[in-house]
Amino acid sequence: MKTSATAFAPASVSNVASGFDIMGFALESPGDRVTVRFSGTPGVRIAAVHSAGSPLPMDPALNTAGAPVIAMLKDHGSGHGVEIEIDKGLPVGSGIGSSAASAVAAAVACNELLQADLTPQEILKYAIEGERIASGAIHVDNLAPCLWGGFVLVRGYDPIDIIPVRIPMGLWCTIASPLIEIKTIEARKILPASVPLRDVITQTGNAAGLIAGLLTDDFALIGRSLHDVIAEPVRAPLIPGFHRLKAAALEAGALGCSISGSGPALFALSASREIAERVGCLQGRVLDDLHMERTVYVSCVAHRGAHIVE
Amino acid sequence: MKTSATAFAPASVSNVASGFDIMGFALESPGDRVTVRFSGTPGVRIAAVHSAGSPLPMDPALNTAGAPVIAMLKDHGSGHGVEIEIDKGLPVGSGIGSSAASAVAAAVACNELLQADLTPQEILKYAIEGERIASGAIHVDNLAPCLWGGFVLVRGYDPIDIIPVRIPMGLWCTIASPLIEIKTIEARKILPASVPLRDVITQTGNAAGLIAGLLTDDFALIGRSLHDVIAEPVRAPLIPGFHRLKAAALEAGALGCSISGSGPALFALSASREIAERVGCLQGRVLDDLHMERTVYVSCVAHRGAHIVE
Repeated sequence: MKTSATAFAPASVSNVASGFDIMGFALESPGDRVTVRFSGTPGVRIAAVHSAGSPLPMDPALNTAGAPVIAMLKDHGSGHGVEIEIDKGLPVGSGIGSSAASAVAAAVACNELLQADLTPQEILKYAIEGERIASGAIHVDNLAPCLWGGFVLVRGYDPIDIIPVRIPMGLWCTIASPLIEIKTIEARKILPASVPLRDVITQTGNAAGLIAGLLTDDFALIGRSLHDVIAEPVRAPLIPGFHRLKAAALEAGALGCSISGSGPALFALSASREIAERVGCLQGRVLDDLHMERTVYVSCVAHRGAHIVE
Repeated sequence: MKTSATAFAPASVSNVASGFDIMGFALESPGDRVTVRFSGTPGVRIAAVHSAGSPLPMDPALNTAGAPVIAMLKDHGSGHGVEIEIDKGLPVGSGIGSSAASAVAAAVACNELLQADLTPQEILKYAIEGERIASGAIHVDNLAPCLWGGFVLVRGYDPIDIIPVRIPMGLWCTIASPLIEIKTIEARKILPASVPLRDVITQTGNAAGLIAGLLTDDFALIGRSLHDVIAEPVRAPLIPGFHRLKAAALEAGALGCSISGSGPALFALSASREIAERVGCLQGRVLDDLHMERTVYVSCVAHRGAHIVE
């Protein structure tokens, strides 16, 4: 019997411009590592959190890694006590799926520890318990790509219908993140309650175009489809320098650029690593110019999702 | 020099459930035939309309086949007089792209007559003049499949961005049309001015899912994606027996069923001719049971769009 298990879960970009609440993709790195191990005492305990950022809740029921473990133990680990160690590679509240990565890594690790042999769909159910704490609602557009890897369409939520979407070779992503925190829960409050029909038509056209572009290796179509008329207009003002950062990405040759998740990070998709790095370089300069502390990541869109590392 | 040209343009299904205002596909038949010929007198004249239905405007500026010819002559046929003969194979106001077929057939025939050598994009511009008369706005989700053939995504309207979408082999369509007329212009008035964000997410998920299903030959995904939460709920009450007709299609094994265009026709997509015919049979019985006069068509989704026949 195993006594401990460690899983890595990558950062992910959700919303993907025209895919508001329904699309996401995984990065290769950075990511979170979560270790779960049997302890002598019943119940779930957060043993340690290694994080460069603000402190995370040590009450497992309020922790995005703790909640999935509590739920999974209830169903599959009767009597066991488990302690959790969290190694946060992702900044919290930056919009690249930090809570999803912790929740998925915890669920994947716990599945391994308990030898529960759950399917990704079943693991997702437990990871949702963690994401619910962070966003106050059920969203799987970070969880699903983090768990499955690659690019994922969430066709529907009732029931949850995950469609992995094949992507062209050579699709690279740049993340430019000014070091301010935007809470998902707050970023959702400013969303419009309803959307003018004209904008709905624009958004559905672009969402459908993005999927068509990905599945037919049509980079130009991907670029033309990366427009968000729903969330970006209301969320962009929360992000210092958003329009300059977006302009810099396009100037550097990115296919498109928008807000990653609920921000403040921006993602840009590019047709090569070289372009993605140039995007990062120009966006970094913009943030320096604005005297913003910042992180810039360049990663391919990763085929591999969360996985056991130990 | 040619003295006359005749084009055939097929029926088409627009909206396609989750593709409201952005998707459409062509049928093999029925369709409209439009002949244009040089006449001795300047200007455009409707010489004859052969139609089983209600009379069409004989003023070419108010006729969906006349307006494209007027516009094309203005740009490419200075001085010529042209007369138009329209052979309506499509019922007017039934929701299977009758006005689009007349407009496209007229534009394609006129392009041939004038030897103008226009691209499909340029022909579309003239056909739009005809559709504008019928719907009071610019919509190309019938025009584009009618002209290009196959399944078409209208990614955007500014500028118009037509994306032909490859479809699986063996996709068949059943059209069940109760013989009542719904004017597009009226069916648009009852649409909601805005859509709750929750429904927008559902609709974009299904539109993206439909494209993914088509491009990956995933019939089950196509079926799960054929849901419309925007137009169908408000337009279904205009169609006698709508819910019984839809239930009959699904009972017969259709992948999905919704309103064709703005109705009253329903379309159903099926994975074989046999199922499509069974759908037509069951839906025909429902309409007979309701004592509705009706037409039922079964056609493959046609790769070929409008074309010159003489």
